[in-house]
Amino acid sequence: MNKTEQVLAHLDAGFPAAQARWMDWLRIPSISAQPAHAPDCRRAAEHVRAELESLGFTATLRETAGHPAVVAHHPGPGGNAPHLLYYGHYDVQPADPVELWTHPPFEPTEVDGPHGKRVYARGAVDDKGQVSMWLTAFRAWVEQAGTLPCRVSVVIEGEEETGSVNFKPFVVANRDELRADACIISDTGMWDIDTPAISASLRGMTYMEVTLKAASRDLHSGMYGGSALNPINALTRALGQLKDDQGRIQVPGFYDGVQDIAAGKANQWASLGFDESRYLGDIGLSVPSGEAGRGPLERLWARPTADICGIWGGYTGPGTKTVIAAEASAKVSFRLVPGQDPDAVAEGFKAFMAARVPADAKLEFTLFGASPGLEMATDSPFMRAAQAALAEEYGKPAVLIGCGGSIPVVDTIRNELGMDCVLMGFGLDDDQVHSPNEKFEVRCFHQGARSHARLLGKLGGG
Amino acid sequence: MNKTEQVLAHLDAGFPAAQARWMDWLRIPSISAQPAHAPDCRRAAEHVRAELESLGFTATLRETAGHPAVVAHHPGPGGNAPHLLYYGHYDVQPADPVELWTHPPFEPTEVDGPHGKRVYARGAVDDKGQVSMWLTAFRAWVEQAGTLPCRVSVVIEGEEETGSVNFKPFVVANRDELRADACIISDTGMWDIDTPAISASLRGMTYMEVTLKAASRDLHSGMYGGSALNPINALTRALGQLKDDQGRIQVPGFYDGVQDIAAGKANQWASLGFDESRYLGDIGLSVPSGEAGRGPLERLWARPTADICGIWGGYTGPGTKTVIAAEASAKVSFRLVPGQDPDAVAEGFKAFMAARVPADAKLEFTLFGASPGLEMATDSPFMRAAQAALAEEYGKPAVLIGCGGSIPVVDTIRNELGMDCVLMGFGLDDDQVHSPNEKFEVRCFHQGARSHARLLGKLGGG
Repeated sequence: MNKTEQVLAHLDAGFPAAQARWMDWLRIPSISAQPAHAPDCRRAAEHVRAELESLGFTATLRETAGHPAVVAHHPGPGGNAPHLLYYGHYDVQPADPVELWTHPPFEPTEVDGPHGKRVYARGAVDDKGQVSMWLTAFRAWVEQAGTLPCRVSVVIEGEEETGSVNFKPFVVANRDELRADACIISDTGMWDIDTPAISASLRGMTYMEVTLKAASRDLHSGMYGGSALNPINALTRALGQLKDDQGRIQVPGFYDGVQDIAAGKANQWASLGFDESRYLGDIGLSVPSGEAGRGPLERLWARPTADICGIWGGYTGPGTKTVIAAEASAKVSFRLVPGQDPDAVAEGFKAFMAARVPADAKLEFTLFGASPGLEMATDSPFMRAAQAALAEEYGKPAVLIGCGGSIPVVDTIRNELGMDCVLMGFGLDDDQVHSPNEKFEVRCFHQGARSHARLLGKLGGG
Repeated sequence: MNKTEQVLAHLDAGFPAAQARWMDWLRIPSISAQPAHAPDCRRAAEHVRAELESLGFTATLRETAGHPAVVAHHPGPGGNAPHLLYYGHYDVQPADPVELWTHPPFEPTEVDGPHGKRVYARGAVDDKGQVSMWLTAFRAWVEQAGTLPCRVSVVIEGEEETGSVNFKPFVVANRDELRADACIISDTGMWDIDTPAISASLRGMTYMEVTLKAASRDLHSGMYGGSALNPINALTRALGQLKDDQGRIQVPGFYDGVQDIAAGKANQWASLGFDESRYLGDIGLSVPSGEAGRGPLERLWARPTADICGIWGGYTGPGTKTVIAAEASAKVSFRLVPGQDPDAVAEGFKAFMAARVPADAKLEFTLFGASPGLEMATDSPFMRAAQAALAEEYGKPAVLIGCGGSIPVVDTIRNELGMDCVLMGFGLDDDQVHSPNEKFEVRCFHQGARSHARLLGKLGGG
């Protein structure tokens, strides 16, 4: 038994305790978007800081202009061992609509499922679950081998779900402390529960809120209807033009810089045998949305989107209220691909709206985050080590996939710190990330932790 | 001093007590749309039933399939005195958005204004205030003259603000009990505080809620964006087409039966000198909305509308949630003019939506009320008596106006009970009916009550 095998045996033996630590962390409702949960965010940060300290890290809570970040360092074995930066986030999405959860979102619950046990909770996978995997790997190495096989730095932020607006400048301000040989991130997915994956691209995102204001007060729809501007009519009229009949987004300049995917990538994706009918069938749909004339994985991984994530205005209670509201609002998320300028998309959206509302309409915008789409390097020694670790754990090669989601800070890590990122994630499509009833398969958690232990061993010569 | 003059003097002397009774009634939050307020609706009904009983009426609470109605009868002086039916409603609109009220909506507050005292409360004018005016007139007659000068029946419903869906069949089922020589209603407005008005037309209304359902659960906008149908995008896309560039409503068959206004009426309305710039300026707007090529009063009184009264879907809290919602909803009010079939408009809206949503979208509709636009008879003895009463009270003739609002049961009273309705109302444009900070001028209340006392005298030979 080599050292890694001993560590894996120790990890398996201690797995119930690892799962308990993960579930304890899930009990803290660290919803970064909601100011009322700011103390919970700090508690979640302190919780993981203490855990890192117990593993021999020098671990501190660091203030930002928003929620605090956790920064920790472990010297590893010394010598020529590589230096890795592990990135993750302790914040979670809001649990709304709470009434659709079958278990309370912040009381993690273990339930039997088709793949064995699974745990339901907000953050079960995204990202407390995935961070807990590498913490579990760290513990197994420290307890079994006395140290980590690599020099390890950790940074865990509290604003990933709100665009890392304050975390990005924190990274830049602390670049010397955070720079390492490579960055390891688990915040993405597998191909399926038997097939590991490494994400070779991420979509970026520009997220905006728009409010359209009309009259100075709510109006009676009988007394004023036919004369007064209705902001909900005006908002739907403008937002209803976001896409043309072919699903092409009509924001001016939106496609500037967007490239068609290369033939090689198209062929590799086609070889994955993605079954979009089944993918949509699992969520009760049958007809793909998005741009006409594009492949299913291309639409998910390599084409930008415009999704209205929320809309509200006027009377939304039971029954009727015959009112012309004073204002109406919407939240719009644009997922971006490499080549698009996130700030230009924000400006384009403002121009799009301004060109489509009546003279009396007053528009107000809030920009909640802007990060570009990214391609990862796929030929580094760190990437090769991750592929080898996954192949050994799963008995089959990892596939290279795209990720339709966004990790805002990856751009900063790559371009400001000059580090490649390895996106080795263990989520499944049906994990209901950002939805009610988010869950993580215990098997994914366990094999993810083992994969991380293997990766450390490979990079540290163990 | 004739009998009416004595009654008016008595009314003036007792006015503070009348105002106190009105304000007591306003303290009951009888919001018919909200099931939680059902007990308050019943309390408001019982409150006015008891008041009618104290005036010598035989007054009962009568069950309907919804909130109860109050029915009361007073024999009057006997002989050939005419028999009048007074209609009103004790229910009120929801107070949302409550945070915009400067005084609590159900704690009526008397404040100084440019026309003397005014009272702020939900229902201050619509319709508890206007009903309280004729109750005040009844009291003055009963206390001063020993009886009412006419035979009087009263029906006060609790569902006007939700379309009188259950009240209309109640009227039909009790037609023999409710039939009288004419129906008197105060639920409309004056031209301005010095100029009384009688409404010669009412718009009708079809009010619908539509829900567009897509995936079986909320989805991550990164993981699914580009493949999964977004119900908010789809809803705004369809509703955004409700009107063309000229403000013409695109619901199929919508304008069937709509007539242009006659030249005589157009001339009479033009003579009123309506200042739309000022009307819009008072609510912070400058550019008229509605159909191009139509006059300002024509758009308000004689053209139909399509106003989205509420819309909601997805995440509406602070900050961001990157979600593709499972469903989105809207409430739409169509104000109708004579000639339009309210049920055909409802069917047309369903067809309009069905033709504009993707194949996977599931549409659900709720019809909250459907009542036609109406023209009133303007040549009856009751109408002439009302005009005379108003002219005496105000020292100038009442003007004939249209009303852009709706009183759903008027159609039933006219067509099922065969009675003409006299719409003699005392609200002002700035009363903020259905809005935060609804108010009623004490002077309007007082002169309205006096006008009602005069009308009773005229019809009863007093």
